[in-house]
Amino acid sequence: MLAIGMMSGTSLDGIDVALVEISDKKEASIRVSLLDFVTYPYQEKTVARIRDAMSLKHSNVLLICQLNVELGKLYGKAAKQMMEKHDLSGADIAYIANHGQTIYHDPTSEFPSTFQIGESAEITEITGVKTLSNFREADIAAGGQGAPIVPFTEYQLYHSSEKDRILVNIGGIANLTILARDGNLSSIIAFDTGPGNMMIDAAMQKFYQKKYDDAGKIAASGKVNQPLLNELMDHPYLSQQYPKTTGREMFGEEMTEALFQAYHLLPEDWVATFTAFTAKSLCQAFATFSKQHLEVIVAGGGAYNKTLMDWIRLESQCDVLTQEALGYSSEAKEAIAMAVLGKYTLEHTANNVPSATGARHAVILGKITDVR
Amino acid sequence: MLAIGMMSGTSLDGIDVALVEISDKKEASIRVSLLDFVTYPYQEKTVARIRDAMSLKHSNVLLICQLNVELGKLYGKAAKQMMEKHDLSGADIAYIANHGQTIYHDPTSEFPSTFQIGESAEITEITGVKTLSNFREADIAAGGQGAPIVPFTEYQLYHSSEKDRILVNIGGIANLTILARDGNLSSIIAFDTGPGNMMIDAAMQKFYQKKYDDAGKIAASGKVNQPLLNELMDHPYLSQQYPKTTGREMFGEEMTEALFQAYHLLPEDWVATFTAFTAKSLCQAFATFSKQHLEVIVAGGGAYNKTLMDWIRLESQCDVLTQEALGYSSEAKEAIAMAVLGKYTLEHTANNVPSATGARHAVILGKITDVR
Repeated sequence: MLAIGMMSGTSLDGIDVALVEISDKKEASIRVSLLDFVTYPYQEKTVARIRDAMSLKHSNVLLICQLNVELGKLYGKAAKQMMEKHDLSGADIAYIANHGQTIYHDPTSEFPSTFQIGESAEITEITGVKTLSNFREADIAAGGQGAPIVPFTEYQLYHSSEKDRILVNIGGIANLTILARDGNLSSIIAFDTGPGNMMIDAAMQKFYQKKYDDAGKIAASGKVNQPLLNELMDHPYLSQQYPKTTGREMFGEEMTEALFQAYHLLPEDWVATFTAFTAKSLCQAFATFSKQHLEVIVAGGGAYNKTLMDWIRLESQCDVLTQEALGYSSEAKEAIAMAVLGKYTLEHTANNVPSATGARHAVILGKITDVR
Repeated sequence: MLAIGMMSGTSLDGIDVALVEISDKKEASIRVSLLDFVTYPYQEKTVARIRDAMSLKHSNVLLICQLNVELGKLYGKAAKQMMEKHDLSGADIAYIANHGQTIYHDPTSEFPSTFQIGESAEITEITGVKTLSNFREADIAAGGQGAPIVPFTEYQLYHSSEKDRILVNIGGIANLTILARDGNLSSIIAFDTGPGNMMIDAAMQKFYQKKYDDAGKIAASGKVNQPLLNELMDHPYLSQQYPKTTGREMFGEEMTEALFQAYHLLPEDWVATFTAFTAKSLCQAFATFSKQHLEVIVAGGGAYNKTLMDWIRLESQCDVLTQEALGYSSEAKEAIAMAVLGKYTLEHTANNVPSATGARHAVILGKITDVR
């Protein structure tokens, strides 16, 4: 059957829409093929309104109430465009699974909570397709962090009984999901390993006024400063037990600026050292696995940094592939994941991963908005 | 089967919980019996937080995000208490249908929208029961006002092929639902008729420092001022075509204060005249119906005002009953309505009333949060 998965991330780029063909029987392993993938960018005024809705200072009930509908209409139109492109009507699509736009995620307060907007009833109205939404609340209600939600799909799509597979995403932060060949859904380990591109990009911005190190060329021309790398590898986050999560608060500007004050390195050596830190902290997270059966699959912007990928290969001494090498798509990964999660929701099957989120038990994620 | 309906109104009194037995087959007419009804009052600190969340000035994304969970837990606990009172487990209850707390309702702006909070995933977590929520968004997405939602249930429970039934609710504002004996779901008329107790209460407050006219005694002791009543009956709202809705902006303090300046009446005559205005404006709304087959059923605080009820009988010259006279409960009415709406949602059956809300077409209201 056909389904649509949609993701709009915190980068506020826009709406990722994946049209997939998905096996329609309950099977031990699900089969998904990506038929088409399009990102519909947000307009600037929409980005500005989302930023206001995320802000403690600028948000209010009217803005959030209206933006929920505004985004719902945009999501509906994005899905409808994908349907029209392929001459599909509402009756041809089994369901739409939409992540929505996160405007708050606060799983550690007295009232752990998360907030995704983009009204699903607007999506059903525009598309005529049953819509699933709000995939994080139930895990939080069960005591989990509401994140990550991708490991469930990763297990369904990538688990192998012959290989230990490690799925890595290198965005600003790097995270991984470990699918042991003798493991199952309840033994999945997933956590943030530390910085991804965040510190590399900070050095590129400061010394080269560029957003990132294209293909890792600057890193390749520099020399790793061993004392600095040793200090970085002593960061307490790295020895912290999982489940664990990190972000800009830990490896962001404040940390890099302090380092720029404390050490005096050549520009290319900063980039090289930070690149080595990302590679080494990542590989340390799965150092105990036997190399023989190990396969590492990298997605995210970091996959395009040749030097980083080389150093991960060198450090891990195992096969390091990209999503594309396996016939998958890095950029469509999360939108596809939504479609897979949605299928289990409709089958009344639990689809969180308690070992990854910290939830007390398995739950069925999502809310269903039906259509006549 | 057993189900729970929950309502928490804009009066912020608390959580109305109705435990009902509901016919579990699809039938021409649904049967519902109320097994128990309890209102769990909100604590003052909760009321204060809800008021902040409703306020443009004091609301922000963090408050709304957390209050959604906080209320969800309260709703879950309220339902759970009802279940424990009757020794019922999650498996005994087919579903919970929860209205949630409205913190914004703005159906007329560029982005018509409505906002009910009280996280359903928290309710499922606490009760172990499948929970339905968000019953207004789909009607708004279809171009309706998202309100009223009670007429659907009124039709299911009160429609008769022998009598034209008019269901009246006299709160601050008075509204009615007309169920013609030869009509069906798509011919329902429902609208606000004008003031209910609002103007009477304003006069009681000003001249007697009391909240309301107990049993209509003051009105009974006064004399209706005909020129004032004539002026009131000329109010343009009364001749406006339905669907129409009114509120405190029209018949509130501003209007009564202006009248108190312009006319000089005895205190009891103010109360009598305003009582007559409520009765007359209400009865005018169904004056064209043949008296012979007409039955008027009144709910709300106004049903306890004997003088008002007498004058409605006098003016309409037809049978005027209370909910209780028919074996129903005035105070549980809306919570029961949620349970009835929820049953249709789960049966994939449309349950809005486009002729009452102004929607372009029928939709299935609500979102379903499933439980393992």
